[in-house]
Amino acid sequence: MFRSHTCGELRSSHIQTKVTLSGWVQKVRDKGFVVWVDLRDRYGITQLVFDEERSSDKLITEARKLGREFVIQVEGEVIERSSKNPQLNTGDIEILVSELQILNEALLPPFTIEDETDGGVELRMKYRYLDIRRNPIKNNLIFRSKVTMEVRKYLSEQGFIEVETPYLIKSTPEGARDFVVPSRMNAGQFYALPQSPQTFKQLLMVGGLDKYFQIVKCFRDEDLRADRQPEFTQIDCEMAFVEQEDILNAFEGLTRHLLKTIRGIETDKFPRLTYDDAMRTYGNDKPDIRFDMRFGELNAVSQHKDFQVFNSAELVVGIAVPGGASFTRKEIDALVDWVRRPQIGAKGMVYVKCNEDGSYKSSVDKFYDQDDLGKWAEATNAVPGDIICVLSGEAMSTRTQLSALRMEMAERLGLRNPSEFAPLWVVDFPLLEMDEETGDYHAMHHPFTSPKPGQLELLETDPGSVRANAYDLVLNGNEIGGGSIRIHDKKIQATMFRHLGFSEKEAKEQFGFLMDAFQYGAPPHGGIAFGLDRFVAILGGQETIRDFIAFPKNNSGRDVMIDAPARIDENQLKELSLKLDIQKRG
Amino acid sequence: MFRSHTCGELRSSHIQTKVTLSGWVQKVRDKGFVVWVDLRDRYGITQLVFDEERSSDKLITEARKLGREFVIQVEGEVIERSSKNPQLNTGDIEILVSELQILNEALLPPFTIEDETDGGVELRMKYRYLDIRRNPIKNNLIFRSKVTMEVRKYLSEQGFIEVETPYLIKSTPEGARDFVVPSRMNAGQFYALPQSPQTFKQLLMVGGLDKYFQIVKCFRDEDLRADRQPEFTQIDCEMAFVEQEDILNAFEGLTRHLLKTIRGIETDKFPRLTYDDAMRTYGNDKPDIRFDMRFGELNAVSQHKDFQVFNSAELVVGIAVPGGASFTRKEIDALVDWVRRPQIGAKGMVYVKCNEDGSYKSSVDKFYDQDDLGKWAEATNAVPGDIICVLSGEAMSTRTQLSALRMEMAERLGLRNPSEFAPLWVVDFPLLEMDEETGDYHAMHHPFTSPKPGQLELLETDPGSVRANAYDLVLNGNEIGGGSIRIHDKKIQATMFRHLGFSEKEAKEQFGFLMDAFQYGAPPHGGIAFGLDRFVAILGGQETIRDFIAFPKNNSGRDVMIDAPARIDENQLKELSLKLDIQKRG
Repeated sequence: MFRSHTCGELRSSHIQTKVTLSGWVQKVRDKGFVVWVDLRDRYGITQLVFDEERSSDKLITEARKLGREFVIQVEGEVIERSSKNPQLNTGDIEILVSELQILNEALLPPFTIEDETDGGVELRMKYRYLDIRRNPIKNNLIFRSKVTMEVRKYLSEQGFIEVETPYLIKSTPEGARDFVVPSRMNAGQFYALPQSPQTFKQLLMVGGLDKYFQIVKCFRDEDLRADRQPEFTQIDCEMAFVEQEDILNAFEGLTRHLLKTIRGIETDKFPRLTYDDAMRTYGNDKPDIRFDMRFGELNAVSQHKDFQVFNSAELVVGIAVPGGASFTRKEIDALVDWVRRPQIGAKGMVYVKCNEDGSYKSSVDKFYDQDDLGKWAEATNAVPGDIICVLSGEAMSTRTQLSALRMEMAERLGLRNPSEFAPLWVVDFPLLEMDEETGDYHAMHHPFTSPKPGQLELLETDPGSVRANAYDLVLNGNEIGGGSIRIHDKKIQATMFRHLGFSEKEAKEQFGFLMDAFQYGAPPHGGIAFGLDRFVAILGGQETIRDFIAFPKNNSGRDVMIDAPARIDENQLKELSLKLDIQKRG
Repeated sequence: MFRSHTCGELRSSHIQTKVTLSGWVQKVRDKGFVVWVDLRDRYGITQLVFDEERSSDKLITEARKLGREFVIQVEGEVIERSSKNPQLNTGDIEILVSELQILNEALLPPFTIEDETDGGVELRMKYRYLDIRRNPIKNNLIFRSKVTMEVRKYLSEQGFIEVETPYLIKSTPEGARDFVVPSRMNAGQFYALPQSPQTFKQLLMVGGLDKYFQIVKCFRDEDLRADRQPEFTQIDCEMAFVEQEDILNAFEGLTRHLLKTIRGIETDKFPRLTYDDAMRTYGNDKPDIRFDMRFGELNAVSQHKDFQVFNSAELVVGIAVPGGASFTRKEIDALVDWVRRPQIGAKGMVYVKCNEDGSYKSSVDKFYDQDDLGKWAEATNAVPGDIICVLSGEAMSTRTQLSALRMEMAERLGLRNPSEFAPLWVVDFPLLEMDEETGDYHAMHHPFTSPKPGQLELLETDPGSVRANAYDLVLNGNEIGGGSIRIHDKKIQATMFRHLGFSEKEAKEQFGFLMDAFQYGAPPHGGIAFGLDRFVAILGGQETIRDFIAFPKNNSGRDVMIDAPARIDENQLKELSLKLDIQKRG
C-alpha cells in the first residue's frame, strides 16, 4: 500500500493524523527557509511543507531537488494551513513531511501539465499519456465513463440485454470503406471489421432477444475529415415488436435520463420535425434549435417586382438576425464576403435593416417599397433592431447556404450556449438519395430501412419521393443518433436490394444469411445507434470529440504516439499469403 | 405497439383483461373442437385457445394453419385455464383469441426450437439466430449481460474508470499471433488488432488515471484449440500505487461480489498457493480444489527397495482416490490403459488398495511390505476404502500425468460439482519459462512483469529460478484471471528486454513509446485481466464458452453463419496496395 489517503481527500477533520500520500510533483516553491510542494494525483492536489524549523536538513535538501512530475511517496502529519486556499478541496490543510521517497524520477515534460498547457496538438498527441494527466482531458475521460455507465444502467433497467457481436465479420458492399483483416488460417480470405453491428443486431431480433444494446467500436476506412476517427464508438440498440413511436419514446427516455443525471437538466417532450420541415425551416436536417432565426420563404412577396436576381430564383429565403440593424456598412460587407466564400458559395446577399422606428432600409430599396419589406419582416418574424439576410437561387443549395449563415450568426451572437440542451427528433427521412454524379439512388440510412407504409410502389415511379420509417435524434445542431424501422419481410428486402442496384447474386453473397434468417420468422423490429464520441462531447459542453477519446488518431488515421500503422516483416506477410503491391503515384 | 403484455407476464390477476400479445408459435395442438397454440417470446410462453364454441370458424381455421415459428399477433381476453400448468409462470391462464394476425410466416426450422434440440453443432452454428431462440442459449446470453453489468457496477463503485483503448494499434513482437489490418491511407503499412490492451493500460497509469478497467475484445491469430476463439473478451484492469496485496484484495472483492450477487454464494477469504506448492500438491498451476486427492510424494518411502522403476525415477508420487479399493481388476486395467494413452503419456501405474480391514493390496507386493505401503497411505492421506494410484518418472511430466488422472477420477466420481465454487490465488509464478526446443527463455506472463524484489541479479546466473510478482485467479480448475505487478523503471525494463532476447533496436521499435513514457514519471502499478467468456461459463455452471457467445466461430476460425472470412475483390486489394501470394502446399 503506497498511500493511506489520496491527494484529494484530506480535510481539517484529519488534522494531527499521520498519513502516507503518493503522487506527482506538480510544483515546488522554495522560499529559502520553507519549501512547499504541490503533490497531485487523480483525486486532487495536497500541499506538502518542509521547513527549516521542523524538518531535517536532509529532508529539506531532498525536497529542493524534486523536479516537476517526479513520482514520490511521503509520510507526514496533517496540519492546519496558516493561509488557507478556498480554491482547493484540500486547501485547509497541508502535510508536514517526515519521510520522503522518490518512487520514480521524471524528465522535464515536453509541455506543462496544467489546465492551460503550452503544448500544441501534435506534441500533446505524441505524449498523450502526459496530456491525460491534465485535468481537462482526465475529467473528460472520467465524464465519458460516467455517461456510459448511466447508459448501461438505464437500458438494463428497461430490460435491454447487452450482447457482444463479433468484430471479425465479412466485407459488405460498401466494401471500399471496410477495414479488412487477412486470415492466416484461410489463405487468400479476409475478415472485415464492422462499420456497425447492423446485421447482427437484426439477427438477434430474429433470435428473439427482443431488446438489445451494445456499446461497441465500429470502423470505417474513409478519408478522414476533421474530427472523424477511423474507429469510433456507438451505442447500438434494437427492439422487436415495435413501431417508430415505441423507439422514439424508448430513446427519448434514455436521452432525458442522461440530461437529468449527468447535467441535472429536466427536458420537456422532445419536439419532432419532419425532414421536409427541417429543411424548409432551418435548411438543415440537424437543426440547432437553441435559437430561432427560422427561415422565411419570400418568393410570394419578392418575385413581383423587377429584381431579376429574385425573379429567376427557385427560392428566395431569409432569416432575421437579432440586433443586426446596428451592423455597420463594413460589417455587412464582411458578411456578404463571408457568404460568397467558396465553402459557402452564395452569389450575394440582400439585407434589410429593421429600424427601431418601424421603417426598413435595404440593399434593394430601388426595387422594393416599405410595404414589400414589411411583408418580408413578417415572413421572417423580424422585429425592430433585426437585420434580415436574404439569399436566393436553386432551392437546395440556397437553403444550405442560409443554414451556414444562420449557424455563423448564432455563433457570433453567442447563441450556441454549450450548457443549454435542445434535443429534437427529425423524422420521415427520404428512403433514398441520389448520387449527383451517377444519378443512381443509394439508401440514405442503410438498405434495411423500411419505406413508409404504402409507398413501396413509388419506388418504381418516383424513388426520390419515398419516405422512410427513419429518424434522427438531433442535439444542439448535431446528429447524435439515427435509426429506422427495418424491413422484416424477405420479399420487400429483395425489392429494396433490386432498387439499390444489387444483382440477386450480389445480394445473396453479401446478405444471404440475413435474407435466409428472414425466412424463419422475423419479427417486426427497429432500432437506433448513437455516436457516443460526439454525444459525450456535447453532453460535456464541448465540440472536439478527440478530447473525449483516450488515444485518438490524427487526420491521417495515424496514432502518432505508438507510430501506427507501420510496416510488418516479410515473414508475417508470407504467412498471410500476401505481397505488397505499391503503385508509384505519377 | 405490437403488444400490451409479454408472453411471460400474465397471471390470474389479469383474468378478464383484454390483451394484445406477439411472438412465435412454439406449438399447435389441434384437438378438433379446440386448438391450443403456445405463443413464445423472450419472456415466456402463453397458451392461446381457439374453440368451436367461442371462436369464429374463420379464426379457428386460421389457427389450424399456423406453422411452427410463425410470428403472430393476437388480441383476446385472459381467461382462467381449466387444467393449470404449474410448470409455467403463465400456467394459470390462457388467452381466448378474438383477432389473429400473421406478422411473418416461417419455413420449418432445420432443428427443433426446444431446450433439448435435435440439431447438431454445425447446423446450430449455421442457423445461430434460431439457436438463440432456444432457452439454454438465450438464458446464457442474458446471464452474460447480467454478469458484465455487475462487474461494471462493482468496479465503478470502487472508483475504477472504464476507458476505451484503441483497436487499431501496432504489431508487437509476438507478431505471428497478431491479426493485422492493412491501411489504405498509408500504403504498405498495417495496424494490428490488440492481443490485449496491456501497453495502453500501463500508459493510462502513467497518465494518472489511477484505477482503470475495460470490458474489451482481444484478438489472437493462433491455431485454434478446442473452445478457443480468435476474438475473445477480457475484463481488463490496472491500478497505480499498488502492491500485489492490493490487487489481490481488490479483485478478490470483485469475484466475491459476483459469486454473491449472481449465484447467491458467500465465500471465505480465498486460499493462496505459491506456484511451486500448486505444482507439488496438484501437479497443476490451476488446481481444482473443490475436492482433495492431494499429491503425496513417495520418493523417501519407495526408493529403498529393489523396484528399479521407482529407484530410477526423479519423482514417485501418488494420490488416494476415495472409494477406489472396490475397483475390479478390469476397472484398474482400464485405468492403467487410460494413463498410458499418448495424450497422458505415463509408462504405467502402480496401485495400492487400502482395504477396509486396514491391510493393503498392491500391484508391487513383490517389492513392498505392509509397513512400506502404510507409509504411502500416510503420505497420500489415504483411508480404508481408497485406492492409491502412483506414477513415477521425470518430475514435471509425472506431475502433469498425475494431475490429469486426478481430474479424470474427480470427474468420474462426480466431484466436479458445477454449483460449487472453489476460488484460489496462485502466486509467485516463475518470471521466465524455457522454450524446450530452443533453450531460450520467454516471459511466462509478459515482458512487463516485475521480478520479485532482489531477484533481478538471478537473471544472469539462474534465470529459471526467478520468481515474479505474478498471480492467477483460479476457479474450479480454470484460470479465470491473471496479472502482475509491472516494471515501472525504465532501466529494469531494458534489462528484461535484453534477457528476453530483444535487441535494443527491436525493443525501441516495438515498445519505444512505453519506455519513453517511463521516463516521465511512471508510478508503481499492476493489474489483472479476466477471461470473461470462461468466467461467465463457469459462473453459469457450464464448461463450453461457445454457448455464452452470441456468434462464435468454429475451430477453423470461421463464422459459418455469415461465411467469413471470404475473398474480397481485386479493386479492394489494389486500393490496399496488396496482392495475393498463395503458396501451393507440397
